[in-house]
Amino acid sequence: MIIVIKPNAPENDFNALKERLKAEGFRLNVSRGEETLVLGLIGDASKINEEQLKANPIVENVLRVSAPYKLANRAFHPQNTIIRVKDAVLGRLTPASAGAENGAGKSQLCVMAGPCSVESLEQIISVAKAVKKSGARALRGGAFKPRTSPYSFQGMGAKGLELLKAARKETGLPIVTELMSVREIDLFQDIDIIQIGARNMQNFDLLKEVGGMVKPVLLKRGLSSTIKELLMSVEYLMSAGAMEIIICERGVRTFDSYTRNCLDVSAIPYLQKETHLPVVVDPSHACGAAWMTPALSKAAVAAGADGLLIEVHNNPACALCDGEQSLTPEDFSALMDSLAVYAAAEGRRL
Amino acid sequence: MIIVIKPNAPENDFNALKERLKAEGFRLNVSRGEETLVLGLIGDASKINEEQLKANPIVENVLRVSAPYKLANRAFHPQNTIIRVKDAVLGRLTPASAGAENGAGKSQLCVMAGPCSVESLEQIISVAKAVKKSGARALRGGAFKPRTSPYSFQGMGAKGLELLKAARKETGLPIVTELMSVREIDLFQDIDIIQIGARNMQNFDLLKEVGGMVKPVLLKRGLSSTIKELLMSVEYLMSAGAMEIIICERGVRTFDSYTRNCLDVSAIPYLQKETHLPVVVDPSHACGAAWMTPALSKAAVAAGADGLLIEVHNNPACALCDGEQSLTPEDFSALMDSLAVYAAAEGRRL
Amino acid sequence: MIIVIKPNAPENDFNALKERLKAEGFRLNVSRGEETLVLGLIGDASKINEEQLKANPIVENVLRVSAPYKLANRAFHPQNTIIRVKDAVLGRLTPASAGAENGAGKSQLCVMAGPCSVESLEQIISVAKAVKKSGARALRGGAFKPRTSPYSFQGMGAKGLELLKAARKETGLPIVTELMSVREIDLFQDIDIIQIGARNMQNFDLLKEVGGMVKPVLLKRGLSSTIKELLMSVEYLMSAGAMEIIICERGVRTFDSYTRNCLDVSAIPYLQKETHLPVVVDPSHACGAAWMTPALSKAAVAAGADGLLIEVHNNPACALCDGEQSLTPEDFSALMDSLAVYAAAEGRRL
Amino acid sequence: MIIVIKPNAPENDFNALKERLKAEGFRLNVSRGEETLVLGLIGDASKINEEQLKANPIVENVLRVSAPYKLANRAFHPQNTIIRVKDAVLGRLTPASAGAENGAGKSQLCVMAGPCSVESLEQIISVAKAVKKSGARALRGGAFKPRTSPYSFQGMGAKGLELLKAARKETGLPIVTELMSVREIDLFQDIDIIQIGARNMQNFDLLKEVGGMVKPVLLKRGLSSTIKELLMSVEYLMSAGAMEIIICERGVRTFDSYTRNCLDVSAIPYLQKETHLPVVVDPSHACGAAWMTPALSKAAVAAGADGLLIEVHNNPACALCDGEQSLTPEDFSALMDSLAVYAAAEGRRL
Repeated sequence: MIIVIKPNAPENDFNALKERLKAEGFRLNVSRGEETLVLGLIGDASKINEEQLKANPIVENVLRVSAPYKLANRAFHPQNTIIRVKDAVLGRLTPASAGAENGAGKSQLCVMAGPCSVESLEQIISVAKAVKKSGARALRGGAFKPRTSPYSFQGMGAKGLELLKAARKETGLPIVTELMSVREIDLFQDIDIIQIGARNMQNFDLLKEVGGMVKPVLLKRGLSSTIKELLMSVEYLMSAGAMEIIICERGVRTFDSYTRNCLDVSAIPYLQKETHLPVVVDPSHACGAAWMTPALSKAAVAAGADGLLIEVHNNPACALCDGEQSLTPEDFSALMDSLAVYAAAEGRRL
Repeated sequence: MIIVIKPNAPENDFNALKERLKAEGFRLNVSRGEETLVLGLIGDASKINEEQLKANPIVENVLRVSAPYKLANRAFHPQNTIIRVKDAVLGRLTPASAGAENGAGKSQLCVMAGPCSVESLEQIISVAKAVKKSGARALRGGAFKPRTSPYSFQGMGAKGLELLKAARKETGLPIVTELMSVREIDLFQDIDIIQIGARNMQNFDLLKEVGGMVKPVLLKRGLSSTIKELLMSVEYLMSAGAMEIIICERGVRTFDSYTRNCLDVSAIPYLQKETHLPVVVDPSHACGAAWMTPALSKAAVAAGADGLLIEVHNNPACALCDGEQSLTPEDFSALMDSLAVYAAAEGRRL
Repeated sequence: MIIVIKPNAPENDFNALKERLKAEGFRLNVSRGEETLVLGLIGDASKINEEQLKANPIVENVLRVSAPYKLANRAFHPQNTIIRVKDAVLGRLTPASAGAENGAGKSQLCVMAGPCSVESLEQIISVAKAVKKSGARALRGGAFKPRTSPYSFQGMGAKGLELLKAARKETGLPIVTELMSVREIDLFQDIDIIQIGARNMQNFDLLKEVGGMVKPVLLKRGLSSTIKELLMSVEYLMSAGAMEIIICERGVRTFDSYTRNCLDVSAIPYLQKETHLPVVVDPSHACGAAWMTPALSKAAVAAGADGLLIEVHNNPACALCDGEQSLTPEDFSALMDSLAVYAAAEGRRL
Repeated sequence: MIIVIKPNAPENDFNALKERLKAEGFRLNVSRGEETLVLGLIGDASKINEEQLKANPIVENVLRVSAPYKLANRAFHPQNTIIRVKDAVLGRLTPASAGAENGAGKSQLCVMAGPCSVESLEQIISVAKAVKKSGARALRGGAFKPRTSPYSFQGMGAKGLELLKAARKETGLPIVTELMSVREIDLFQDIDIIQIGARNMQNFDLLKEVGGMVKPVLLKRGLSSTIKELLMSVEYLMSAGAMEIIICERGVRTFDSYTRNCLDVSAIPYLQKETHLPVVVDPSHACGAAWMTPALSKAAVAAGADGLLIEVHNNPACALCDGEQSLTPEDFSALMDSLAVYAAAEGRRL
């Protein structure tokens, strides 16, 4: 950590600051330039109170040199974390482990598909069967739905979870579904992968409690969250005990509104460099339009994504939410066919 | 609501859509242009499923003509809502009521001040006394703190609430403090004004439960929330029963980072036009710097704000959070003096 | 175009507005709802003065139904525009034309590569030869450089153009280079493809004059330009006479700064749907980092881009500008190898 | 300047970098931490090639400690620059100079008003007389207009400049008008204050040539320009010779579109801290709505602005551009009355 001291700071105040930092266990390096005086801190700066430092009247600026996240940081955990839930595998295998494990030497491109919201037993079972047939490895579907308007359909709730479990029983696919409130934690104990939605990425109490469940978690990036904030939220989950975190890029908010959000495709390689955790992409929510989903899916795979989360509905024009962005089972099947060649080019199989 | 139909949409599909909308109780108005076919819906469109409409293959676009919020909408509630909590009054009085009520014919500029977080009994009582002396009408202070990093100080929790109540007893000032989780609702029954933080603006389960407490709520705008989304979150609170909502503009996120956030001063007149609820501003969090807080406070008052939320700490350089943006009690006193003339120019008194 | 009238607008004023619009040649459709009064205009609304309408005191809002761009609009020009400059071909062929033209039935993935700025004859010729050998179809390189700081290297100017032409003579590659000012138009008459940079996307006088040159133009999207604004700038070029416009997505500005810009990969399919012009991507400027360029290049191809603009420098660590984002010739060669399979999957060849 | 070296960088490469930097005249300070190795540069880093440094494979990051602008930097020019054009005075006087100069001890709040575009002799003279009567100190009006669409009214051009001069002759008000292209520089020699529009803030060739005119320049902040970029554009003008630069905040682009732009009111105190130049605000373009202009004008004055740029039109509903945001002369007169008390509170007079 680098502390830039204001020009003309009183020597006494500067000395007092140095003493205080030494007392906190840091070694110090002072560099006096022509226009500036810079103090380098040597030691673990991850838990320092940056704001308190900035409030010191002689401090001009504080610059971080190392990342504030530790458990999620690839620097301290160089090997990829591989998450396995039934037949779904998330994360890129090393060549050695790939060979040993599946004979084919290939990592999985893990596609999770299903409707925005669970609407009926017939619907969820028919979609689950269809997406499984096309090669999906997990079933996604919302039972509790975060909706901008209190007047919109809010999901089937606990009943929806039961229908998802019925579809799991029928198809063997593990379930990914969103948990919105600490009130529902008990209902989710039997869910395979717990999704934290974009609007709850910084709902820190929820993160702590879900982390304490010690289950696989799919964490969506907030609409306007920086990568650093996203990784700090991962850190909340991990420091509470959950080590199997799937990070999901789902589009960010910009000045333009021609798509619902802007898929930040660069987040894929960047997150994979910064962290050891699998990174998946939700192209459906990123663009908000079924016709654009295949192009974004292919782009995500080509950029190295470990998996995809895709909305599929048996009858999009009658979907109770997000029909505009749902593929039909036929469209999804065609997309999976076209993804195979991109997956192969990236050393993966569907 | 206006539905733009795609060129060359099959006549059958168009007729089917019309029949379905008629069945939902709308009257229709068809307008055939040279390049476009437009369908106008006459009736209450606030509860229509816009996404389902957009998922219809013959629909090009859906344009809303009227606002989707009802309870918060000034169109259906023309008179200002006035919220009174002890000596704090939020909202602009009409000339008549102002005259009748306080003789002076002036609305209050309600300043709520206090530390970012409660740290000790001595601290909170000393700050409470200081801000009261300078004219503050409510005491703000955090007991439960939302922090980006799990390694940062998370607040004193329930103990902090007790200290706030002790300060209230000592000074008579009502308390404003943040509720982060439905788990803590019982602890907040005796709090005067419940604050929902920016990161929880779309924590819909929290909104529903807090709305059900039927107490005054101060709702902060999310970091990247549109005004429409903000008003839909107000609508969540109101439709759950809480009619006394104080809307708080606290800066939004942009491409620039020279301030922590960008105070969106236009939100003040716009919200006051769209809604009947009081609008306050938090200049401290908007800029994140004590030296800039006075300029933004004055700007907010000049733009018509009903109140301010200002961070004051007895020793900013030792504050456990956000010291950089905290005023000293002396700075706060000087600011209140300088605000008086702006308040007066807006027909208000401190 | 839809005009929403304010509730309680005086009938006289409404009639006056209707008369004025009729006099401008529009047919009108009036739709009276329960809360709103809506006026639909039938006729060519592309040249209407929207701001003047909004300034009318009885007008609540004006909603456009059809796009304001005409020449760039696929609706009026359904077939892809194919741009050929020496061996470079931009745009997707129809199956029929593809077969007739090159026997292979494939469109080109047109890669344009070269250094950020021309620095010497040796440098530009060595890079040109290297990128040609790897399969590039055009040479890019800056002679006039837009730099944020007046103290940074501003490019070699006219001398740089001469060096580019020498490299063209040596390799046969057509040249793409940026024109920054109307003062230099004469110098660019012999340039193959004129680039308009992101910062000049709304330099309308430059657009008009460059449009008048009636040469192929590569127009970069502005840092914070909407797709609609981008297409209106294309419209400036086309209405001045230049029909061969290559649209370039090069990343947009967001709230996050972990990359220089955020590649907006959705712009590729969207622009190809809205317009008939070729769409290329500049991954180097989008991310600002050489290590991330391959992932973004592959993503762009997978999303359907007609070409790429990639920075290649013989010695990035000594480059006079943007070395951080330049590939070495060896890296570029490896990238081209890996792109071949993605190009093939999209029905293209390098 | 601080250079963070990658962990495990080869010692040889690190030594080579140090030698190179020493050869460029810097003194170096090496700080080895537990996780990081940091190199501090002592010397004038304003002209260093930051990108070249970042392209060095052993460099992790480069952090600037001092600002890259020099001429505009208050650190090197502590006293306010005061710009006088006829009776217009821009900049805050020191108490001493204020007393000496006008006896009243007050700085001016310089209001510049007029129509978006000049439309006729009658129009511009009538508006000029009206705004002068209400206390405006300069006449603004566009002759050359930057318009998003090529089909919109582009301004009267040279004829418009003549009409502005006629209005100046009639009223004595100095003229502020926008110069869009180096082609028109000769036409602007007799203009009092040359405006550079937001879209041309980074049209560097224009900045260089306009700087060379050595006249007062009003530079508008770009739609998505950071404060640092804005100050670098000021630096372009100043390094070319123009020392009288008026910086204009006119709203920035965000994710929300309820106003045309978001007035960044914090820019006022921040720019006044960083630079010695006067800072003015254009509330009309910031919000794009006449009804909101008074609130934003008052906020800007309260935040310390040195002046305002306000659109006034004799008949907004018939204005050829931006009628929606134009005040009538009557509204403007009322606004000026209400501004007087805010100006006085800030130690200024109209």
